[in-house]
Amino acid sequence: MGARNVTRTIIVETPSKPGNLGKVTTAIGLFGGDIGEIKTRQIGPYSTVRDITVQCESEEQLETAIAAVEQLGEGIHVRAVSDDVLHAHEGGKIHMSSRFDIRSIDDLRKVYTPGVANVCRAIEEDPSLAQYYTSIGNTVAIITDGTAILGLGNIGPLAGMPVMEGKAALFDRLAGISGIPILLDTSDPDEVVATVKRISKGFGGILLEDIGSPHCFEIEERLIKDLDIPVMHDDQHGTAVVTLAAVMSACRSAGVNLKEAVVGQIGLGAAGLAICRMFMAYGVKEMVGVDRQPAALDRLAMYGGTPARSLEEIMEKCDIVIATTGVPNLIKPEWIKKGQVILALSNPKPEIEPDEAIKAGALFAADGRSVNNVLGFPGIFRGALNAGAKRITHDMLVAAATAISNHTKPGQLVPHPLDLRAHQIVAEAVEMAVMKEESSK
Amino acid sequence: MGARNVTRTIIVETPSKPGNLGKVTTAIGLFGGDIGEIKTRQIGPYSTVRDITVQCESEEQLETAIAAVEQLGEGIHVRAVSDDVLHAHEGGKIHMSSRFDIRSIDDLRKVYTPGVANVCRAIEEDPSLAQYYTSIGNTVAIITDGTAILGLGNIGPLAGMPVMEGKAALFDRLAGISGIPILLDTSDPDEVVATVKRISKGFGGILLEDIGSPHCFEIEERLIKDLDIPVMHDDQHGTAVVTLAAVMSACRSAGVNLKEAVVGQIGLGAAGLAICRMFMAYGVKEMVGVDRQPAALDRLAMYGGTPARSLEEIMEKCDIVIATTGVPNLIKPEWIKKGQVILALSNPKPEIEPDEAIKAGALFAADGRSVNNVLGFPGIFRGALNAGAKRITHDMLVAAATAISNHTKPGQLVPHPLDLRAHQIVAEAVEMAVMKEESSK
Repeated sequence: MGARNVTRTIIVETPSKPGNLGKVTTAIGLFGGDIGEIKTRQIGPYSTVRDITVQCESEEQLETAIAAVEQLGEGIHVRAVSDDVLHAHEGGKIHMSSRFDIRSIDDLRKVYTPGVANVCRAIEEDPSLAQYYTSIGNTVAIITDGTAILGLGNIGPLAGMPVMEGKAALFDRLAGISGIPILLDTSDPDEVVATVKRISKGFGGILLEDIGSPHCFEIEERLIKDLDIPVMHDDQHGTAVVTLAAVMSACRSAGVNLKEAVVGQIGLGAAGLAICRMFMAYGVKEMVGVDRQPAALDRLAMYGGTPARSLEEIMEKCDIVIATTGVPNLIKPEWIKKGQVILALSNPKPEIEPDEAIKAGALFAADGRSVNNVLGFPGIFRGALNAGAKRITHDMLVAAATAISNHTKPGQLVPHPLDLRAHQIVAEAVEMAVMKEESSK
Repeated sequence: MGARNVTRTIIVETPSKPGNLGKVTTAIGLFGGDIGEIKTRQIGPYSTVRDITVQCESEEQLETAIAAVEQLGEGIHVRAVSDDVLHAHEGGKIHMSSRFDIRSIDDLRKVYTPGVANVCRAIEEDPSLAQYYTSIGNTVAIITDGTAILGLGNIGPLAGMPVMEGKAALFDRLAGISGIPILLDTSDPDEVVATVKRISKGFGGILLEDIGSPHCFEIEERLIKDLDIPVMHDDQHGTAVVTLAAVMSACRSAGVNLKEAVVGQIGLGAAGLAICRMFMAYGVKEMVGVDRQPAALDRLAMYGGTPARSLEEIMEKCDIVIATTGVPNLIKPEWIKKGQVILALSNPKPEIEPDEAIKAGALFAADGRSVNNVLGFPGIFRGALNAGAKRITHDMLVAAATAISNHTKPGQLVPHPLDLRAHQIVAEAVEMAVMKEESSK
């Protein structure tokens, strides 16, 4: 018998009659599948769903065993086949929970009718009380149209749901925020803005997530203008905050004065343009950028940056180079100047491998794995919600980046993304930035 | 010193400087407030928020003490004053929780990037997998426009939020469903339908809640037609299910054959009309209704019921009379016929007090307190989601009502609303009804 390296969980539905499980396990065994744990997932009056863990010698053997189960007929079928990662996502990663026990009629009368009517009336009289007597002030909508999910592109909002649930899970665990995924079945800016505005009363903030460029710019700008709750497109500003923090750390360890440096950005999509704006907000005087699309260069100029004519010009001119193009190996080693700081952030393959950049003369080089935007959004929203901020300003984001960088251990670019203290420090820095803005008004 | 019957929690915000709490407590004490527990709710860099529990002899004394705190100035102010019920709603009643721990980079790589990309790709290839690898199939949107919140009327969606959170809390505790409140800032049927459709991909079902009549009819009908997930307006069908269950129980204990009885419905608003439809779906042959609005009578006729000319006609003609008018004491005792079954359901004051109806000759009488719609929606949606139902049919609702009534103890109209077994039985009955419908196709 060969090594059984392929372990999968087969989710099988059978009519709820004795004997069916025997047929299924016999079929799997006949084709060489070794059955481990069997878990009953759901028993209904007519059908039962079970997780059957099977070890096989190869993917082919597994597929043969699955086909054998499918061929049994009589209402037996394979609903899905899970691996380890898929298994971790089964049933979804989030759940809306009651914060209180409801055990007695007295509890029910308090949290539901008739008691709840007093709370409704209090809010009707003074809408600001919704901040205290509902979860709204601690709730952020995580909104996507599915047009730019991770590096996967326009795979639609449904296929993007696992990412939105991931963000909600991280909001909960890292910042105690209640995050609500909202999947939008439209990418038209007018429809997106109208839809989000119509449901916005139930949320204390809006995190725009994995919305493609360029429509993300118009959507974010219009929502910020029209709503008086914090709105942030994570792929732009969350990424930019963590990038600025990483570059601040890199400059500190390389002994470079960031504000006096010439910074170059290769790729002016949603992330790239936001990085440029963030660096200029921080105080970088010369921010140069390049992109294949003329419209992107125009946007950079509009925000006060300097469009470059070519990649080579950026590499020639800049002390610090950041790349977010999605194109592996775009930066040739011979273009690296001695003493340059290089952040090639595209995932999973960077524009130049860090060790190659160092060999070519770079003073410091890193790739995207060290710049995890998980460090940004939870603390930024925690701070904004705590402070009751009506919008997220560049001052708040620069404060977040500075806090992240200051909390970074020597030799690292950013803190551990699950370091709860880091998220707390970001929240405090953002809250303090809001207070400063308010007291300077 | 008089009795201190008035206990309130005063939520006070002070600048984060030593000495401020002293000023606040001194002010409260000066005006006779007796301070109990002091809890720090939030410490920010600039301001601190505390809960101060105060006992006073009277509301007037309390108000004087609060005014004294407000007059301190220097950034000190009273954010809110809570009583017991309000206190139970502080910070809201629900929270979106991660179902998994995220403690290591390995966890993060599984539930977030890069692992999550595999799950996204799997769903992109086969959208039906979203049922297994996301929470969508266990999530119901609780949608209101705030136009008919409890008996309070059109107080707006924000003031209705405590009710939506209550429903979400009950969904969680009674049926393990993740309920997401959605507050709509519009009541226009076109806009409501468009908005709900655009966000519907993220939900396995839609509970319409506290939406006024008549626009609730058009909204529900159009959403049922356009979406392939269960949509139910609770104020119509949830209420109708529990009412049918209660009448079934009443008929059983009174020895009345419900299907052969003449049933009268007084008030044909959202709940009343749905009750008529539910009774006819159950098999009641003669369903008579009355309402002041001609349009409501037309709707009843459209669904196959018989419009009556007057209240008196209903009382004269019917064996069973149900009233949902909101008008206290509408039914005069002299109208009651010997042997009638009377359910006067308006809250908080019924159309006739049960003991008065009995005195006047009724065989059985009850008011709205015994017909709690908490018994309906959790199990109905649990069953519909379990069965993967695309819509909620009258067969499913009748099955739910029958299950509720069968699970009722002798002498009661419906089970205890927090009896978990009752909700489970409703879910199973609904699931079985779906299976029956499917197998009869």
